[in-house]
Amino acid sequence: MKLATLNDGTRDGQLAVVSRDLKTAHLADGIAPTLQKALDDWTFIAPQLDLLYQTINSGRGHRAFDFDPANCLAPLPRSSARVAGVSYLQQIERACKAAGREVPADLRETPRLYQGASDNFLGACADIELAHVEWGIDYEAGLAVITDDVAMAATPDQAQMGIKLLMLFNDITLRNVAAEEAGTGFGFLQAKPAVACSPVAITPDELGDAWRGGRVHLPLRSSVNGKLAGQPNAGADMTFNYPQLLAHLCRTRPVRAGAVISAGGVANKEVKKGFSSIVDRRTQEIIADGAASTPYLQFGDSLRIEMLGDDGKSVFGAIEQNVRQFDGRRARPA
Amino acid sequence: MKLATLNDGTRDGQLAVVSRDLKTAHLADGIAPTLQKALDDWTFIAPQLDLLYQTINSGRGHRAFDFDPANCLAPLPRSSARVAGVSYLQQIERACKAAGREVPADLRETPRLYQGASDNFLGACADIELAHVEWGIDYEAGLAVITDDVAMAATPDQAQMGIKLLMLFNDITLRNVAAEEAGTGFGFLQAKPAVACSPVAITPDELGDAWRGGRVHLPLRSSVNGKLAGQPNAGADMTFNYPQLLAHLCRTRPVRAGAVISAGGVANKEVKKGFSSIVDRRTQEIIADGAASTPYLQFGDSLRIEMLGDDGKSVFGAIEQNVRQFDGRRARPA
Repeated sequence: MKLATLNDGTRDGQLAVVSRDLKTAHLADGIAPTLQKALDDWTFIAPQLDLLYQTINSGRGHRAFDFDPANCLAPLPRSSARVAGVSYLQQIERACKAAGREVPADLRETPRLYQGASDNFLGACADIELAHVEWGIDYEAGLAVITDDVAMAATPDQAQMGIKLLMLFNDITLRNVAAEEAGTGFGFLQAKPAVACSPVAITPDELGDAWRGGRVHLPLRSSVNGKLAGQPNAGADMTFNYPQLLAHLCRTRPVRAGAVISAGGVANKEVKKGFSSIVDRRTQEIIADGAASTPYLQFGDSLRIEMLGDDGKSVFGAIEQNVRQFDGRRARPA
Repeated sequence: MKLATLNDGTRDGQLAVVSRDLKTAHLADGIAPTLQKALDDWTFIAPQLDLLYQTINSGRGHRAFDFDPANCLAPLPRSSARVAGVSYLQQIERACKAAGREVPADLRETPRLYQGASDNFLGACADIELAHVEWGIDYEAGLAVITDDVAMAATPDQAQMGIKLLMLFNDITLRNVAAEEAGTGFGFLQAKPAVACSPVAITPDELGDAWRGGRVHLPLRSSVNGKLAGQPNAGADMTFNYPQLLAHLCRTRPVRAGAVISAGGVANKEVKKGFSSIVDRRTQEIIADGAASTPYLQFGDSLRIEMLGDDGKSVFGAIEQNVRQFDGRRARPA
């Protein structure tokens, strides 16, 4: 099933079920008011949402309406846990090569995860508002899972059962700020200001055979200013799968319903598939040409991130964002 | 005013107003069901909660009942943002000295903050359940603020207006795991499994003159197995105050209502005030005696963390926890 959260002026929005073809939607107001409420009691709520999903897919739902991604908040506008893993290690390996650094010895043994902001996930069409292009504004196209409760010390198999939904993720990153923060040992804070999510989150069964081994085996297409920048396959070269990332997180603590676990910018070994971030492209430029030539994003630039199924149809809808200069005057505290 | 969240079997619990002397409580069910709901609309809700607070302080509230910290969840059982600052820098300076490392040049110029788990804040009397003492189980006694919305690029003065509540914080830390994670540059994940909070969160006005300069000028008492381990003053040697920590966080992003910002284990320059964590005591032992002699926590150990006002009365109630071995058999995913 496919779920979206409509902007009704509240912080958590209003849960809606969206048809498989992303054309129509139906409020889930009789079932669960918000996605977090649904996740809080998923075993009970999910079958009811699925019934509604079947109804609108068959064209029956008499209160169905046209689905408009521009009217969506993130499927889960805020969450009590967000952990970002880096599972496409060729990106790190390329960066080490370009910088003449050694690849960490345990890179392929121990998952690397950091905790990030989860109080303000952006909708698929929300502007990226930032103050300075000098920060090195970059996108990072990837995926994330949303979990149910997962117990402390869960194995990867147990963790896999806790994965309830998937969505696309644009992990907006300020590369020049990240370079400053990398040395502190405290992880990334100012360098990771926001994440935008696809219009819908989907249950893994929507992916059919493309969901196997805890990975999504489909290409993730990202474009900058209308030009295709990359279409690497999200399953091909993913070292740690989602259950492994989740089990790593659970080693010393339980995880509660609504946790969002991403796996980093999708990257393949073959660079001809393109890149899911500007920094990865710049890294390859340094390796090939001795210097980076692609600039980071400028105000006015536009992004599009989308995943198509084997049938050529959009699975999650598209993230479509413009980069815009933050105007402090209209954003003071209430 | 003082607020608590009672355990009613739900994830977010039930909001209650607690009398100044922590003796009686009254459900806030007619005003806001949960603390997050109150924070989501604080300007409208807070005055109503305050009226109820005045009523129970005067002994009138006809549905008031005895307040029992053992029946509390954390005041905010889950939050969409938790950022931990390290503002008691003498602890870092001592650690550098003990390890023969140089103190980072910008330590007193740039706040250091990392993002931590916020999906499972523990109640004041919840057991600390962990699998292995070999992880180096430690407490870290400190304070945290809970915020309203704070805009991107807010100044410290603007950020100060966003601070709505304060509480005590036990930031449970696995020191031997932290040592492994420190080198990754990704911050702390498995090393920071849980946080326990005081029974009540309070509005800053409850502190009177002890809340000044964005700091709490009172000693924070922590005991291990009934023996006083430290009573450093939380205001005396706090380098970055809460508004500065919050403004640092807001440099590139807005912060949404319910964010929890802590300032690290309280420490004073004068070591005779004792310590707010075992690691800080061990550091001092290394400096003074050449080797650490105090062990980390063992299963069965107990902790108590409390702050007394100038009148000798408990301000937040006490965090009172026992360390217990995690029993995986009774904690599988649902």
